[in-house]
Amino acid sequence: GDESQSKASASSTESAGKYETLDVTLNDGIYKITLNRPAKKNAINYKMYEEIGLALLEAANDKNCTLAVLTGAGDYYCSGNDLSNFMNIPPDGIGAMAKQAGDILEKFVNAFIDFPKPLIGLINGPAVGVSVTVLGLFDVVYASDKASFHTPFSQLGQAPEGCSSYVFPKIMGTAKASEMLLFNKKITAQEACDRNLVSEVFPNDVFQKETEARVQQYAKLPKISLQKCKLVSRELEKDKLYQVNKHECEILMERWQSNECMNAIMGFFQSKGSKL
Amino acid sequence: GDESQSKASASSTESAGKYETLDVTLNDGIYKITLNRPAKKNAINYKMYEEIGLALLEAANDKNCTLAVLTGAGDYYCSGNDLSNFMNIPPDGIGAMAKQAGDILEKFVNAFIDFPKPLIGLINGPAVGVSVTVLGLFDVVYASDKASFHTPFSQLGQAPEGCSSYVFPKIMGTAKASEMLLFNKKITAQEACDRNLVSEVFPNDVFQKETEARVQQYAKLPKISLQKCKLVSRELEKDKLYQVNKHECEILMERWQSNECMNAIMGFFQSKGSKL
Amino acid sequence: GDESQSKASASSTESAGKYETLDVTLNDGIYKITLNRPAKKNAINYKMYEEIGLALLEAANDKNCTLAVLTGAGDYYCSGNDLSNFMNIPPDGIGAMAKQAGDILEKFVNAFIDFPKPLIGLINGPAVGVSVTVLGLFDVVYASDKASFHTPFSQLGQAPEGCSSYVFPKIMGTAKASEMLLFNKKITAQEACDRNLVSEVFPNDVFQKETEARVQQYAKLPKISLQKCKLVSRELEKDKLYQVNKHECEILMERWQSNECMNAIMGFFQSKGSKL
Repeated sequence: GDESQSKASASSTESAGKYETLDVTLNDGIYKITLNRPAKKNAINYKMYEEIGLALLEAANDKNCTLAVLTGAGDYYCSGNDLSNFMNIPPDGIGAMAKQAGDILEKFVNAFIDFPKPLIGLINGPAVGVSVTVLGLFDVVYASDKASFHTPFSQLGQAPEGCSSYVFPKIMGTAKASEMLLFNKKITAQEACDRNLVSEVFPNDVFQKETEARVQQYAKLPKISLQKCKLVSRELEKDKLYQVNKHECEILMERWQSNECMNAIMGFFQSKGSKL
Repeated sequence: GDESQSKASASSTESAGKYETLDVTLNDGIYKITLNRPAKKNAINYKMYEEIGLALLEAANDKNCTLAVLTGAGDYYCSGNDLSNFMNIPPDGIGAMAKQAGDILEKFVNAFIDFPKPLIGLINGPAVGVSVTVLGLFDVVYASDKASFHTPFSQLGQAPEGCSSYVFPKIMGTAKASEMLLFNKKITAQEACDRNLVSEVFPNDVFQKETEARVQQYAKLPKISLQKCKLVSRELEKDKLYQVNKHECEILMERWQSNECMNAIMGFFQSKGSKL
Repeated sequence: GDESQSKASASSTESAGKYETLDVTLNDGIYKITLNRPAKKNAINYKMYEEIGLALLEAANDKNCTLAVLTGAGDYYCSGNDLSNFMNIPPDGIGAMAKQAGDILEKFVNAFIDFPKPLIGLINGPAVGVSVTVLGLFDVVYASDKASFHTPFSQLGQAPEGCSSYVFPKIMGTAKASEMLLFNKKITAQEACDRNLVSEVFPNDVFQKETEARVQQYAKLPKISLQKCKLVSRELEKDKLYQVNKHECEILMERWQSNECMNAIMGFFQSKGSKL
């Protein structure tokens, strides 16, 4: 009912008006995070990296939250890292920029590794880059049949993040993971389901209704059992995931300072919209 | 021929009349264990946990046994842990009961981890709970299309066992495993095959005949090579599996003493037959 | 164009006429290795084991090579280990023969573990034994629908190699891997794709054209990024792979000296062509 619906701020006086790039609600135990830069296809700028981490922390600590949901506003789920993050080289040079970006990314991914409650992705449309790779750290991922999944790393002179270099080969095998992570293959929602990145695919016109019904049902389950069911798996590989995340960020910091990467990103801006 | 068909006791004078809850035969190198409490849908009571462990040990040590098969009598494969195991709280309290149940479970699962010969599951009907989770420790699993696979842990205030918190994400990815282990999703035989928990599905009317033909053929293969082929894989993760099993049992001992679990189990008995 | 097409020797004066059992070309950044004993269904004799290792090393070191491709001449991809390797027992006995074969195999598999650039398998026809198992160490594997995949280890009294005892359960689950590695199941190209051993299957009549187009496109990607994208994954499990390879070779050295294996191989030669 209406009474149980509220901005997350209802359970935390500190969070009122807190989020610039997200829409956040807490409702019937469901902490829902909506990426909310639809005019930018929900590209993740530095502010959004930080706010997603804060929202996950708030969801983890809020005793009224049973589980969290992440989705996108508009037609896109998320177009990935906002490449304009790289357009303003600071006065202290590209090395400092790479270091800053690496630290932000590592902290962002760790927020997913650490999240102690069930985390459900509702992939309403195309997903690109880091918004795809971190899905391997979610518990359940439902996708609209309008969704697609694209990780064009080598094409942009970069390398995988979000622990995908470890998680993707684990869940889909190297032969399928490498098509995505080395060779920029864009896959459909059904292909992502066949590759175990997605739990189930729904026709777009029933996507909201069907997934909401499931999430509502899940949020009624015994809260502590749900956390234990998740943690018994996650604890097994938490140290490995931290280590992979750190290593991936180190490689990326090196990549971001390479000529290959700079040329590829400049090429991207020159032919924007036509390459990916 | 008839001569080669015998109760397992034929090769071990100690095992005559040994099993109350199982039917056990040794025939042409095939040690066949049939869960034999059809009136209880082959629910596993404490006696059956112990007897399955003993039968696996007997199969491991019997030089006439090339491989072992596990199946269920009647329409069910196995309805999982017999919840009446939890109905008689001993005088020394619920803590002692949880400790006893945890020790029995850990020993039971270790018997599967340690089994050194090929182990084939013939899933003739619905499988629930621990009878599903230990399938990840089998070598080959054939299922009738009447089989289903259901692990309602959080619904009963509990948590995964049988090393499923490690094996299920490994073989089917977290997105598919969490639907089962966190959110109680019941899956069909074909879905279990798509998730790599089952090797192949057969129409129910040819299930016995087709799987028997395969098992007969496998039992004729070079015996030591079969063991080496299994052990070269199993040895790689044996220590990990022991550790996971121990950790899962610790979590469950805590769960069994929780209010969430007690309320959920009482609710189950009050609405028996309608919930799972 | 024609100018960019050349034998690999073009970029290495030492390699002219170097390969007896392979055809090797370097063309537009693509180092293509073709197993070239079609009269023997490209069975791998000791010379070919050595030459594949050398060719991979050459491809790794050649700065003009962006990626490598492995395929087979004629209708077969590869019929696996040439069992005639075992027909001439040396004067110092079967123990010495097993030691030699184990060393050759371990070195061969390590060449795949160590290869630092993208490695693409083009499986043009049936693949058997070690030519199947090492596919788990490739990055991408494309198969013709005429391909099949067969690892008859226990049938020949042997045991898995090529790190398959670790990689196959990881990518397809134990229930599917054991059918292949324990019970000699021969699978189709589509089944290999469903099991994540193959990336994609093509109708045989368009196989060459379609896969060549993809490989050409991949070879134009930023070269160092491609290597980083591969290495970030491979480095995570390189030590594990070395260890698995070593362990598998030790088991095989023991197997090759066993009666089970000798009887099975003699049986194979007596009924050649009809068993596998």
